[in-house]
Amino acid sequence: MTMRSIYLDNAATTKMSSTAIQAMLPYMSETYGNPSSLHSAGQRAAEALADARKRVADCLGCSPNEITFTSGGSEADNQAIISAAYFGKRKGKTHIISTAFEHHAVLHTLKKLEKEGFEVTLLDVHENGIVTPEDVAAAIRSETCLVTVMYANNEIGTIQPIKEIGQVCRDKGVLFHTDAVQAVGHLHIDVKDQNIDMLSLAAHKFHGPKGVGVLYAKRGIPLTNVIEGGAQERGKRGGTENVPAIIGMTAALEDACRNIDTNASKVSALRDKLICGLSKIPHSVLNGDAVHRLPGNVNFCFEGIEGESLLLLLDDKGICASSGSACTSGSLDPSHVLLAIGRPHEIAHGSLRLSLSEETTEEEVDYAINTVTDVVTTLRNMSPVWRDLVNGKSEFVIK
Amino acid sequence: MTMRSIYLDNAATTKMSSTAIQAMLPYMSETYGNPSSLHSAGQRAAEALADARKRVADCLGCSPNEITFTSGGSEADNQAIISAAYFGKRKGKTHIISTAFEHHAVLHTLKKLEKEGFEVTLLDVHENGIVTPEDVAAAIRSETCLVTVMYANNEIGTIQPIKEIGQVCRDKGVLFHTDAVQAVGHLHIDVKDQNIDMLSLAAHKFHGPKGVGVLYAKRGIPLTNVIEGGAQERGKRGGTENVPAIIGMTAALEDACRNIDTNASKVSALRDKLICGLSKIPHSVLNGDAVHRLPGNVNFCFEGIEGESLLLLLDDKGICASSGSACTSGSLDPSHVLLAIGRPHEIAHGSLRLSLSEETTEEEVDYAINTVTDVVTTLRNMSPVWRDLVNGKSEFVIK
Repeated sequence: MTMRSIYLDNAATTKMSSTAIQAMLPYMSETYGNPSSLHSAGQRAAEALADARKRVADCLGCSPNEITFTSGGSEADNQAIISAAYFGKRKGKTHIISTAFEHHAVLHTLKKLEKEGFEVTLLDVHENGIVTPEDVAAAIRSETCLVTVMYANNEIGTIQPIKEIGQVCRDKGVLFHTDAVQAVGHLHIDVKDQNIDMLSLAAHKFHGPKGVGVLYAKRGIPLTNVIEGGAQERGKRGGTENVPAIIGMTAALEDACRNIDTNASKVSALRDKLICGLSKIPHSVLNGDAVHRLPGNVNFCFEGIEGESLLLLLDDKGICASSGSACTSGSLDPSHVLLAIGRPHEIAHGSLRLSLSEETTEEEVDYAINTVTDVVTTLRNMSPVWRDLVNGKSEFVIK
Repeated sequence: MTMRSIYLDNAATTKMSSTAIQAMLPYMSETYGNPSSLHSAGQRAAEALADARKRVADCLGCSPNEITFTSGGSEADNQAIISAAYFGKRKGKTHIISTAFEHHAVLHTLKKLEKEGFEVTLLDVHENGIVTPEDVAAAIRSETCLVTVMYANNEIGTIQPIKEIGQVCRDKGVLFHTDAVQAVGHLHIDVKDQNIDMLSLAAHKFHGPKGVGVLYAKRGIPLTNVIEGGAQERGKRGGTENVPAIIGMTAALEDACRNIDTNASKVSALRDKLICGLSKIPHSVLNGDAVHRLPGNVNFCFEGIEGESLLLLLDDKGICASSGSACTSGSLDPSHVLLAIGRPHEIAHGSLRLSLSEETTEEEVDYAINTVTDVVTTLRNMSPVWRDLVNGKSEFVIK
């Protein structure tokens, strides 16, 4: 068989679309001026920036002056949370609600705020990987200044009831931020309709460039700088604006939003085929809700398997996959997301995330089902842990 | 005459070189993996990243593990200063020395630290725009944790005695950071030889991409995150690494360093011709030292002129120039840099910065001399302030 290369790690990052690349190029070598410059070369860049801001705002359902361009999703998450926290603190409110399975850009920012005296409540996300509006409502106190709940989880792909959580927050006068890095471009989002006060996104998750993202913050929420500097972004984000990347992101976002229904139905059909195929592997379990799930996300635990070995063997057979978040892949700890949905350590170690894009083909999915099945069997045959399970010396966690 | 376009604002930003663009492209659409991913697509990106880190380190004379990739010069400045400040604070040292004419990425970070209880001394830069090692030595106290002095000023281009300041700091056991955003790629830099502990750079100032920069921090200096998140950059900078931009920056930096002498001698000859030509305009003065000056920087004050009008008329004649820093161009305040070198308000308002690159031609310089001379004459003829000066009703500041 010829060497294949099947990229099933689109939740980690995506291939840039040629639309996005072609949109960027003129801003590298022609309209390369600094948008803060008064001369015409600068003003052409400034106009492109203003146009991009309007187009991004249109995709999210907000106003251009509610958009701040950042270096990516992590910076946007940091700035959203810090801004809301300090805004709250000025009114004597220092309690923040989040969930146990947020991205580390959120969790580590919350840790930093805890050291500054903020109190953080991390909600349970239940076994299906979903936090309920009722849980949020019950946790809100008079000192709560912010609720931050991710739109869709980056590992298990579960989609949260964002509009309902937003409504709870609005009713109680608490700001609501959502890390929508995995959702934007893949799910319909309208920040006004969904009661979202702040939202973070990253372009490289929907075929845009790396190194650029957006913080949406509703008018009236004062932003705190994460990066101090010049007067760019209304003084709220120092540093020369990354015009080419912003233009590339805008093109990719419009593309994604325009084709969102077609892509979602195509990709989710492939996802369901993949889930169905992998479910036939004995002692396997899908992580996260099967319905309220990103169109492209598949995440399984296989008992008796060590996740890293699985990835290496799959890679050897041309499949690029991951065990969970790429951002923490250096770590030997099991995924905090899988622990949050109640998977025990020994199972959490044997996880596999396959994340599809609209470029994924049915043939690739068939190949993935067969290959994962073969590789899991191979690894189990070599595993003393598996032998003990089969021989009844220890008990299966996944029945 | 046909419409010209002469870009003399290279201190604000530069046109990307085709070398840098060509270096980036494969990392957008082919080797697009997330370098934190374990599979081969990720590992190819990780190898490219490691290679880039080594090449950048070679250009600066440091080790790869002393390099942190950031979203640009402002972020690097922020992180350097905050890291050194918090490192000092843990040892009871909360005094920082800087200068009055730093970039706002430095000055605003210092302002933030002042609010947290740090004490900041801003040194005088004298009329020639240079701070002396003696000034630095005299300001250092037992509580001083950091000296941060820019390598070359972004408005008037004056080059500071970095090695000597670094020596003073080393002798007194104080960390030394330099914002080298304007210098890197244009001047020979060797951080070890020049006693530099921390250095910031931005790729778009030497024909690299926007949205990417470097923080060099000597081994042993613990970094504080500006952006919290995943385990990228040894856990010190969250966010998926911007591989294409990092590769583009590396190509541009190597290019710049390889040709540094040729470019510097060519550009500084054009600079001196331009300075000589503009000096013939009556009641004009060069801002900043004529010798210790970036090869590409020309900055003049013209008495009786309003800078913004000058820029607009020059732009109309095809010359892209600026009055000072692009980052503060929205502001009506006079340049803090020109005030720092002692220019009175009325003169500081009439400034013009022309910043050359190695693509600038002698013909463009000749055109600039003639055009600036004409435009200054035109504006003065329309100016009541100038009329008063000529009629002796008020006194010339520039003799």
